[in-house]
Amino acid sequence: MTEDYSEGIIKGSRRALAKAMSLVESSRESDFYQSQQLLLKMLPHTGNSLRIGITGSPGVGKSTLIEEFGLHLIEQGKRVAVLAVDPSSRRSGGSILGDKVRMPRLAREQNAFIRPSPSGGALGGVARKTRECMLLCEAAGFDVIIVETVGVGQSETEVSSMVDLFMVLLLPNAGDEIQGIKRGIMEVADLVVITKSDGEYVLKAEEARSRFKSALRLMLAKPNGWRPKVLTTSAVEAKGINDLWTACREFYENVERRSFLKDMRRGQSKEWLHQILNHELLRTFYHNENVLKKLPEFEKLVFEQEMLPASAAAELLKVFKTSF
Amino acid sequence: MTEDYSEGIIKGSRRALAKAMSLVESSRESDFYQSQQLLLKMLPHTGNSLRIGITGSPGVGKSTLIEEFGLHLIEQGKRVAVLAVDPSSRRSGGSILGDKVRMPRLAREQNAFIRPSPSGGALGGVARKTRECMLLCEAAGFDVIIVETVGVGQSETEVSSMVDLFMVLLLPNAGDEIQGIKRGIMEVADLVVITKSDGEYVLKAEEARSRFKSALRLMLAKPNGWRPKVLTTSAVEAKGINDLWTACREFYENVERRSFLKDMRRGQSKEWLHQILNHELLRTFYHNENVLKKLPEFEKLVFEQEMLPASAAAELLKVFKTSF
Repeated sequence: MTEDYSEGIIKGSRRALAKAMSLVESSRESDFYQSQQLLLKMLPHTGNSLRIGITGSPGVGKSTLIEEFGLHLIEQGKRVAVLAVDPSSRRSGGSILGDKVRMPRLAREQNAFIRPSPSGGALGGVARKTRECMLLCEAAGFDVIIVETVGVGQSETEVSSMVDLFMVLLLPNAGDEIQGIKRGIMEVADLVVITKSDGEYVLKAEEARSRFKSALRLMLAKPNGWRPKVLTTSAVEAKGINDLWTACREFYENVERRSFLKDMRRGQSKEWLHQILNHELLRTFYHNENVLKKLPEFEKLVFEQEMLPASAAAELLKVFKTSF
Repeated sequence: MTEDYSEGIIKGSRRALAKAMSLVESSRESDFYQSQQLLLKMLPHTGNSLRIGITGSPGVGKSTLIEEFGLHLIEQGKRVAVLAVDPSSRRSGGSILGDKVRMPRLAREQNAFIRPSPSGGALGGVARKTRECMLLCEAAGFDVIIVETVGVGQSETEVSSMVDLFMVLLLPNAGDEIQGIKRGIMEVADLVVITKSDGEYVLKAEEARSRFKSALRLMLAKPNGWRPKVLTTSAVEAKGINDLWTACREFYENVERRSFLKDMRRGQSKEWLHQILNHELLRTFYHNENVLKKLPEFEKLVFEQEMLPASAAAELLKVFKTSF
């Protein structure tokens, strides 16, 4: 397995790109060095794509919109990659995104590349690998990278910390009760997209649009100076897709005019380092032999109420520190 | 500040309890030892309360229901404590729960104690302190501890890992689109409570009830053998509150008959230890002088694309390890 995918990726080989992603997603210790070498080689070829995050609850029409949007971009001469982040449900461990082939027409395009979510789901693991897959797609010359996620749990904040532009999809008939849930999401949204604005829903979609517009007006401008926009779309009637692309370009012109893109990405790369640091620190701790030997004893003391967790933690940290 | 609150707490002094909670919630290093000593003294007096978690989006009528439920419990001769966990919004840092006095009638009761959320919101910090406040309330002889949270982000999983029974409140007219968002929450729900089942909403509430009943039937039984129940309530008409309390008692009879309560709490105390361990480990790392000295250098290398985060993380871990 000493094959070098770097040349293949740069030449645009889909096979090399897919294999490189599997390597990067691998959790085998032996694959780590090779994947780091590959990524390091790829770095000079990255950073030139538009990085767009898209989130929305199941049923909002995410796949349909991404497919229409992707096809539109391809018509404009762009190459498009779609990466999915699936925060698997905590207890069932099941996949929310479901079928791998949710975008059959886009999947058939030569200038599109669709990668489903990796199956591993350890602490910060999914997002970390998505980020590395994004870099591989950039090296492969894709102009637009779409990172897709379901608006459940933490995934949307993870994704928003790796893209330039974050899009939130909403249904026209979303009741007020869900706005509360979305509050955290709305704060990171650059574009709010009301989907399924067709047939009987056109009026509702317009109502929703003006409601969200007023709501967003009350929020502070984002640090990049961009004021979030609200759009209505219909994937079925292929309506609003061109406007969506126009809004994306406006966003980029705006942040680039303020030279904010570089700053934004600098902040993100710092956050990325910290995510990996935290992950590795915890991994090192829980794989430490001395810690593993002592852990059950302290767990018992805590349960028997003979010791408080904070004191047990202090003791276990001592064990960890003295093992070097 | 060497006052000992332990006697006051056990004697039922509200002032001592409130002061002890402030001590426990303090992030001052100098308060840590004292709060650990206090908690250790309290431990033998804990474990005898019913621990009930309640979650629901803003607008679902959480405060109103908790107030009615609390007043009902007091009528039954119980003493009730309400603790709020507020997962402050990431960017704005603002409080979602709002006003401290959301339950004016309950707050006036001698046998009720309401504690708003602590203001600090570091990694796992809020939930950790809530857990310790719960123990203090138990030592103070409260029969039922209600831990209240908003169904946003991770707080509901944190809360469900510290209570025996987890209640999810839903509006009668909640559209299908929000069920996706709630998926993670539904999996930890022991009781699903449809609120505001009054006036024109009675029919909708009943419809919602049967829909959720069918949905829950498809889910696996929880490890404690309990099959989640769905109830309708109206806080305004004080309807369903007694049934809610009956369902809670059924739950406890059920898990106690299977001797599952002890096992459940054992698992939770293990999880509690791990939460604190992770928190302390990260704190130790990011307060390490050698790490702090090297961090900016590696952040720069990562941003300049001269180094990958994973390699930078490995180097920083070496710095950390060799500093002992």
